[in-house]
Amino acid sequence: MATKGSERAAPVTRSLPHVVIVGGGFGGLYAARALAHRPLRVTLLDRRNHHLFQPLLYQVATAALNASDIAVPLRSVLRKATNITVLLAEIERVDLANRRLVLDRGEMGYDALVLAAGASHSYFGHDDWEVLAPGLKSLEDALEIRRRVLLAYEAAERESDGAEQQALLTFVVIGGGPTGVELAGALGEISRRTIARDFRVIDPTKARIILLEGGPRILPTFPESLSRRADDALRRIGVEVCTNAIVTRVTADAVWLGGKQIRARTVLWAAGVAAAPLAQTLGAPLDRSGRVLVEPDLSISGHPEAFAVGDMCAFLHQTGTPLPGMAPVAIQQGRTVADNVLRRLRGKPTRQFRYRDKGSMATIGRAAAVAVVGRLRLSGLVAWLAWLLVHITFLIGFRNRFLVLFEWAWAYVTWHRGARLITGPWKGRG
Amino acid sequence: MATKGSERAAPVTRSLPHVVIVGGGFGGLYAARALAHRPLRVTLLDRRNHHLFQPLLYQVATAALNASDIAVPLRSVLRKATNITVLLAEIERVDLANRRLVLDRGEMGYDALVLAAGASHSYFGHDDWEVLAPGLKSLEDALEIRRRVLLAYEAAERESDGAEQQALLTFVVIGGGPTGVELAGALGEISRRTIARDFRVIDPTKARIILLEGGPRILPTFPESLSRRADDALRRIGVEVCTNAIVTRVTADAVWLGGKQIRARTVLWAAGVAAAPLAQTLGAPLDRSGRVLVEPDLSISGHPEAFAVGDMCAFLHQTGTPLPGMAPVAIQQGRTVADNVLRRLRGKPTRQFRYRDKGSMATIGRAAAVAVVGRLRLSGLVAWLAWLLVHITFLIGFRNRFLVLFEWAWAYVTWHRGARLITGPWKGRG
Repeated sequence: MATKGSERAAPVTRSLPHVVIVGGGFGGLYAARALAHRPLRVTLLDRRNHHLFQPLLYQVATAALNASDIAVPLRSVLRKATNITVLLAEIERVDLANRRLVLDRGEMGYDALVLAAGASHSYFGHDDWEVLAPGLKSLEDALEIRRRVLLAYEAAERESDGAEQQALLTFVVIGGGPTGVELAGALGEISRRTIARDFRVIDPTKARIILLEGGPRILPTFPESLSRRADDALRRIGVEVCTNAIVTRVTADAVWLGGKQIRARTVLWAAGVAAAPLAQTLGAPLDRSGRVLVEPDLSISGHPEAFAVGDMCAFLHQTGTPLPGMAPVAIQQGRTVADNVLRRLRGKPTRQFRYRDKGSMATIGRAAAVAVVGRLRLSGLVAWLAWLLVHITFLIGFRNRFLVLFEWAWAYVTWHRGARLITGPWKGRG
Repeated sequence: MATKGSERAAPVTRSLPHVVIVGGGFGGLYAARALAHRPLRVTLLDRRNHHLFQPLLYQVATAALNASDIAVPLRSVLRKATNITVLLAEIERVDLANRRLVLDRGEMGYDALVLAAGASHSYFGHDDWEVLAPGLKSLEDALEIRRRVLLAYEAAERESDGAEQQALLTFVVIGGGPTGVELAGALGEISRRTIARDFRVIDPTKARIILLEGGPRILPTFPESLSRRADDALRRIGVEVCTNAIVTRVTADAVWLGGKQIRARTVLWAAGVAAAPLAQTLGAPLDRSGRVLVEPDLSISGHPEAFAVGDMCAFLHQTGTPLPGMAPVAIQQGRTVADNVLRRLRGKPTRQFRYRDKGSMATIGRAAAVAVVGRLRLSGLVAWLAWLLVHITFLIGFRNRFLVLFEWAWAYVTWHRGARLITGPWKGRG
């Protein structure tokens, strides 16, 4: 038997209150960390074994970073917190009335619950577009996008038909928020710099990278002056920016804007997100993106022992509109909820959540970014350095921090991207 | 149109002799490098976009290294060799008589051919074992093995049935050659060190790692004294070594040695290889492992313009037995064949291949290895340092060399393995 003896394994006893956290993203992980070494039994459930630093996921998709540079096993992050158990599990349903979760195997009861299962892509009713235009949420998504982009250049090199070759060398990113801008910028740098001299038949610098935004400007949540600057920076690295562009149809080799067709073999989706489907099993009020409408203390209406944080919840109480789906929001909510769980178990009143806006930023490419910090608006190199500093600081674990810095420094000097490997099954021209 | 203008693209003209190299492993890549900047058109075909440093593949499988640490895009390695075109393609058939290749799309003629398509696993007629006991040849194999090993511990942590939990914590490696020894050693280190304190229910240090070898000793190609030392080193890190162990059956939860059953959920195959199936399309004489029986100059009998190198060929002329499937053999053969291609095109006689044995080595774990260099037999720390030096030196590309050194230094100090990520679809208990 491989079960540990009780002398080693059980610093917490069965009689302690049991807190279950669903999801090891920013919200769930920061809640767990705040509950470490407290008189509680904590179980963190996730269907993946790692925490993912999602703000840098587009860099894995565009071959600048390795998967392990931006992900850490949850077990090793929480190794020293002996009151926390990490389990790899899929959660099928939450039974709020009976305080239990239905898992892929078995059930689990709780005294307090933190739902932090995050969000997935929303195709606004066009779910058939998902295979044609993958989005970017998980490491698997990132590796699939990397595979498609690199294979498109490979297929173009072998293609003799001119129109088909052009379609292979056209990359469309749908959605002009931070993720879309970052993806398009990275695709521009790949074509104009990284692989510019790698091919013999095609000229990668002639590839078209098109960013489509449905509204009147990209980065709509940023001040208008920064949208313009981002627009300029994208155009400088060869990205065509189209605003007021409503996608009406996506096929295997084209994107349609009403009657206008753009022939493209690679289409990426950065246009919409919806809360994890688990939210729909709650029977609690949701907004139209499927997010749980939480109380001011982040609890679920009528269930003071259950909370939702991060991309899974819609918190309207501060501004009237939901807070954006950003890491800082999830981190702050995770910490507040941990505090509220402790308060409730001690019989104290919970406290209301208040978001402290420390700013937001988006990067366009080498030495180009935009940032809002309070009343400050930054762009260009200064914003990029700020972006670098913030992202390095927040990367969990020293090793990752050091390696990412090295990869970046190396890429900055050489324009190389180290992770340009196509893995996964060979699918010919796919 | 994205085709380059002729002023930029065509430093070589159509009238130059066309050399086709099939496969970008050690044999193919070193042949290509030796033909760079020569008055030839060279096309290198591979179904993957990267050269793989196979001797370190087991370190990706055991989460010590990232995929991109041991693989480089073929295009970037050969970027400056403007007479070489790299194409991603699957080769279906070789038509030696008409000097042409049938590809997944279209055909390709040649004036000289270098076959370097390598080898895949051989299950000795038990092809149904392949899904149950994956082998280690490609990056995909390595990531699949990593996934299975890490998921087994995760499933064990959730398992309540004692016998099933023990089966999940039993890892069997079939085959006691260098790959099997290296895999078993790394699995021992993972269980005894890396994840020893990461779990709450199971004790990973109680996991069983079993190395099965059909013959009387592991590392049969090494001197007997080194086999014994490797055996000792494996036992010290908790690996059970079973020799004269003939596997008669593999199922989803057990390995059978005649009437004896070992319950195990994770079984890895390191027992046999066979030449790439492409060899069978040649109509040329093969040995029983499917390798092409080449002439003393590595050409294919009756086809002086076609050559085979590396794991794809059986070269018997020096010792009477085929040379081992090792990187140094493939590298030396690749260089000889490049020379012979040039000689033939100049109307000069080809030269016979002679293998210069510079030694062989296998590593067992932290500061433990065995090596034979000429009459020298090394083991322990000295052999391990020699192993480190040789592998670092041969890794192609400075960036990889530096990063791998850093990963190793970091792992040596901390016992951590940075790449402990499970990617790929969630399959529950698999």
